[in-house]
Amino acid sequence: MRVWSSPEIEALIARLARLPGLGPRSARRAALALLQEPETRLKPLMAVMGDAAQTIRTCSTCGNLDSQNPCVICSDDERDQSVICVVETVGDLWALERAGVHKGLYHVLGGTLSALSGRGPDDLNTRGLLERVDGGGVREVVLALGATVEGATTAHWLHHQLAETGVTVSRLGQGVPMGGALEGMDDGTLAAALMARRRLET
Amino acid sequence: MRVWSSPEIEALIARLARLPGLGPRSARRAALALLQEPETRLKPLMAVMGDAAQTIRTCSTCGNLDSQNPCVICSDDERDQSVICVVETVGDLWALERAGVHKGLYHVLGGTLSALSGRGPDDLNTRGLLERVDGGGVREVVLALGATVEGATTAHWLHHQLAETGVTVSRLGQGVPMGGALEGMDDGTLAAALMARRRLET
Ligand SMILES: [Zn+2]
Ligand SMILES: [Zn+2]
Repeated sequence: MRVWSSPEIEALIARLARLPGLGPRSARRAALALLQEPETRLKPLMAVMGDAAQTIRTCSTCGNLDSQNPCVICSDDERDQSVICVVETVGDLWALERAGVHKGLYHVLGGTLSALSGRGPDDLNTRGLLERVDGGGVREVVLALGATVEGATTAHWLHHQLAETGVTVSRLGQGVPMGGALEGMDDGTLAAALMARRRLET
Repeated sequence: MRVWSSPEIEALIARLARLPGLGPRSARRAALALLQEPETRLKPLMAVMGDAAQTIRTCSTCGNLDSQNPCVICSDDERDQSVICVVETVGDLWALERAGVHKGLYHVLGGTLSALSGRGPDDLNTRGLLERVDGGGVREVVLALGATVEGATTAHWLHHQLAETGVTVSRLGQGVPMGGALEGMDDGTLAAALMARRRLET
């Protein structure tokens, strides 16, 4: 007997299985759903992916993803330009925005410092942050990093770098459980953490 | 403050969230992963979706999805053409093929009869099955339907329809737990169920 499944279907399943949150089994189910309803599922998904691929870019100021550059947040005059909230990922930025608690700007690092993974300052968007602060007009930098060893290491390093700029450096306060990633937290927790942010002593 | 997220991103998240197995939260994570790595994630996924959309069709004989019509299973001379295994969905067909226990052909109904959902015989690919049996050369029809009320109703109806054709009608035997869908079952269970299939008395 020959192999039953076509390479095109297997390739689709394999690609879907690489998405976060989709294992091999759910990728198979998703592929099946797409293929069984090409007009109402597969093609519309391809269309929105094409739109996103054409329009969405990384904001050269803060690292957010948007269809405009600078992004809609960086371009918003009503936001407090003097407070920059530093996050690890765009997902963390989105989580804070959904909570609606931060009225300033953001800066996406793209990860954390990690001796174990060999990620140094140059592997993150740290230079961009220091340049924004050096550019003036920034009063406070809120370090909204995860309560992990790497998050704390990164916060410590950034605090040190920013110490001589005269800017206030704070970190998220109570409400962030140990080992917790920002993205999975509910809005209330995020709001409490931001409200209770603590200034780091120099 | 304006809305933070672009419509292109929200449209992508909404479409991904409609895939089985992806909730709103995991759809957001998946969209983020795709957008953050457009070259290594978004575009390759679009490419395999495009390939699949262009090549994959529903087999006009059995209802399987494949890049050839009749599908690779229907075209395989080494398979037993005299035994047709009737399944609810293509996912069920794939599950049985993965288990590698059925050496004959398949017929995908596209669902079950359901008074509640108003699905009658004409809403399923029942006519195609009866035509295949009428066409001759079929010795046995194995009803590999789920152990649900609808599955049993459908099996009963098909058995009745096939009674006068002289073909042997069997159903999956032990191993299918009550209320269980075929697709979620392990290979051993499926193999045992197929081995222990029971002929339906007329
Ligand atoms: Zn921006
Ligand atoms: Zn076929």
